[in-house]
Amino acid sequence: MRFHTRKWVKPEDLNANGTLFGGKLLAWIDEEAALYSIIQLENSKVVTKYMSEINFLSSARQGDIVEIGMEVEKFGKSSLTLNCEVRNKMTRETIIKVDNIIMVNLGDDGKPKPHGKTEVEFVKDRLNNDK
Amino acid sequence: MRFHTRKWVKPEDLNANGTLFGGKLLAWIDEEAALYSIIQLENSKVVTKYMSEINFLSSARQGDIVEIGMEVEKFGKSSLTLNCEVRNKMTRETIIKVDNIIMVNLGDDGKPKPHGKTEVEFVKDRLNNDK
Amino acid sequence: MRFHTRKWVKPEDLNANGTLFGGKLLAWIDEEAALYSIIQLENSKVVTKYMSEINFLSSARQGDIVEIGMEVEKFGKSSLTLNCEVRNKMTRETIIKVDNIIMVNLGDDGKPKPHGKTEVEFVKDRLNNDK
Amino acid sequence: MRFHTRKWVKPEDLNANGTLFGGKLLAWIDEEAALYSIIQLENSKVVTKYMSEINFLSSARQGDIVEIGMEVEKFGKSSLTLNCEVRNKMTRETIIKVDNIIMVNLGDDGKPKPHGKTEVEFVKDRLNNDK
Amino acid sequence: MRFHTRKWVKPEDLNANGTLFGGKLLAWIDEEAALYSIIQLENSKVVTKYMSEINFLSSARQGDIVEIGMEVEKFGKSSLTLNCEVRNKMTRETIIKVDNIIMVNLGDDGKPKPHGKTEVEFVKDRLNNDK
Amino acid sequence: MRFHTRKWVKPEDLNANGTLFGGKLLAWIDEEAALYSIIQLENSKVVTKYMSEINFLSSARQGDIVEIGMEVEKFGKSSLTLNCEVRNKMTRETIIKVDNIIMVNLGDDGKPKPHGKTEVEFVKDRLNNDK
Repeated sequence: MRFHTRKWVKPEDLNANGTLFGGKLLAWIDEEAALYSIIQLENSKVVTKYMSEINFLSSARQGDIVEIGMEVEKFGKSSLTLNCEVRNKMTRETIIKVDNIIMVNLGDDGKPKPHGKTEVEFVKDRLNNDK
Repeated sequence: MRFHTRKWVKPEDLNANGTLFGGKLLAWIDEEAALYSIIQLENSKVVTKYMSEINFLSSARQGDIVEIGMEVEKFGKSSLTLNCEVRNKMTRETIIKVDNIIMVNLGDDGKPKPHGKTEVEFVKDRLNNDK
Repeated sequence: MRFHTRKWVKPEDLNANGTLFGGKLLAWIDEEAALYSIIQLENSKVVTKYMSEINFLSSARQGDIVEIGMEVEKFGKSSLTLNCEVRNKMTRETIIKVDNIIMVNLGDDGKPKPHGKTEVEFVKDRLNNDK
Repeated sequence: MRFHTRKWVKPEDLNANGTLFGGKLLAWIDEEAALYSIIQLENSKVVTKYMSEINFLSSARQGDIVEIGMEVEKFGKSSLTLNCEVRNKMTRETIIKVDNIIMVNLGDDGKPKPHGKTEVEFVKDRLNNDK
Repeated sequence: MRFHTRKWVKPEDLNANGTLFGGKLLAWIDEEAALYSIIQLENSKVVTKYMSEINFLSSARQGDIVEIGMEVEKFGKSSLTLNCEVRNKMTRETIIKVDNIIMVNLGDDGKPKPHGKTEVEFVKDRLNNDK
Repeated sequence: MRFHTRKWVKPEDLNANGTLFGGKLLAWIDEEAALYSIIQLENSKVVTKYMSEINFLSSARQGDIVEIGMEVEKFGKSSLTLNCEVRNKMTRETIIKVDNIIMVNLGDDGKPKPHGKTEVEFVKDRLNNDK
């Protein structure tokens, strides 16, 4: 799994207990799922249709760095199923896992539309070696 | 189910397609689950542990009013399982449903702690007639 | 008075003294007045015209739950006058009171327009028993 | 009256009608009243106690520039009464007026404390000529 | 240099170290540069084209008041070069300086357009005496 | 250069012209520089000290996906110099470039402290093949 987007946990991201607000985390996941799909499906009109069960395995505190990983689980005809993991960059601890996030590809009429993709596409400029 | 908290969908709540950003909705649900639990368990240290699968049944647009309903599914020893529905106040359409949201009651040491509650408590000042 | 919307006071809602930022509270009240009016007047184009004097009676701290109550004071021809109270859900302390908030019903041309309402309407699905 | 702080109305500041959200405006006013008082009273622990009635005279749209003016109405023993006007920088139209905003000076114990000020103080480095 | 806009550093403005988040400060500067230019050029379509090097000389903490100063460095044909300083209102310490911020005046077609201005204009209602 | 963090341009990120607000972009860059440094220096107390000149080469619109790239320019004794590029994920167009961002490693006393690092460290779990 590739971990792209990273967040720095700031005071504005905390719940009233002073730990990372779960709702903020879910919002970050939803945004990452959307943009991952937009890139893969080459269509900017993509919506979240379903998320499988979510386990909050650990939390994060102010100053922690959180990274969000996505990978493709399955290509449907007009959908894309993703698998997501969020973890703490420093401790390597998993914060949350969502096995299936189903994103739907929409046409201009706002209805599901076949996307014609069957595999993860190679985006060459991301193949430099990793630091 | 009681629908308390209501939100007015403003530009800051929209995704790039101009509809209600799913992540924002999930954040609203998580906040409502937390505060519902805090009130029922009379303990302000409560965290989200689990959410069952989430179906995005419909969306909302700018200017729509969304209301968030919660009800207790089960009282555990140190947990509380909630059932959540979000709907569009005007159209009555259901936007999202989450059958089980498990909230855990924490002690001062940050570990699960029995809450001693077994039923929804009667909060009398909410029993005025309803407008 | 019915108290619907509830807020969980998070770090992002605090002023520099670490108590609930008064401006945030006023923003919450204004949003609640708008959506209450939209529902009652069945018109989504409603604006705030006037607020009577505001007394800040007590404050709230991080982790507190605040609930916002509204009731109709008077139906005007193209306006609706509301009465608002915000209180701390746990302590039952009143945080703020605003006796009159005048909301104006607008037509498509952006000008005041009679709304034809004379009494609070019965919204049946809010009459379940209350928890 | 001196108009200091200026805001550029961005999409995040709009209500669902696409005009400046009144609640945002009230939050801006409350912040300006707080910081004006902090500077005058030379004490960072200052809270809003009261606002007199508020008339929303006009609104603002995306892209408009709004400026917030404050002046001292009266020095109390442990309070400061301000007078506020918000206007549209380009049209010069008044958006809102609040005749009396009472700010209270607090001591370390969180209780009202005499501030010893009786007049607006001259802050010399703001006396350059004005552009 | 005139210091107009002032900000009260609140929890939502802090980085994970608990000091003013540099990114927030840069956002405040960019907004101030935009609105200063809009007023001077009497055109609301203005964009940031360039910022010269930025030195973070000191920081600010929660509760501090920050003021943002701008002055015109040069009028170009379709651009305006500004000079910016941000300082702590209480300590008078400079937080940041940006010698040149180039703003470009755009026409309806989104392309640079001559603005016809050659000097800072006198805005008379800002000439009251200063408190 | 590695492009990690990605952002989906939403209404809340726009300026009053409806394009990506430059200030938001600068805030994103500053956050990314901070977290990149925290990971490399294995110290969470890192602050931005300097940014070299910034050219806004192109913009982004609602719905665009922006990715932020960082690479190390130089390891100082208690500092780290980064090089940053932000680009539009779909069009591959460069939005902004900042040649040198100097981050300073702080000790518990808030003063610069040698970090002992001299080269980019290999973080093995980011070496999977890239999609």
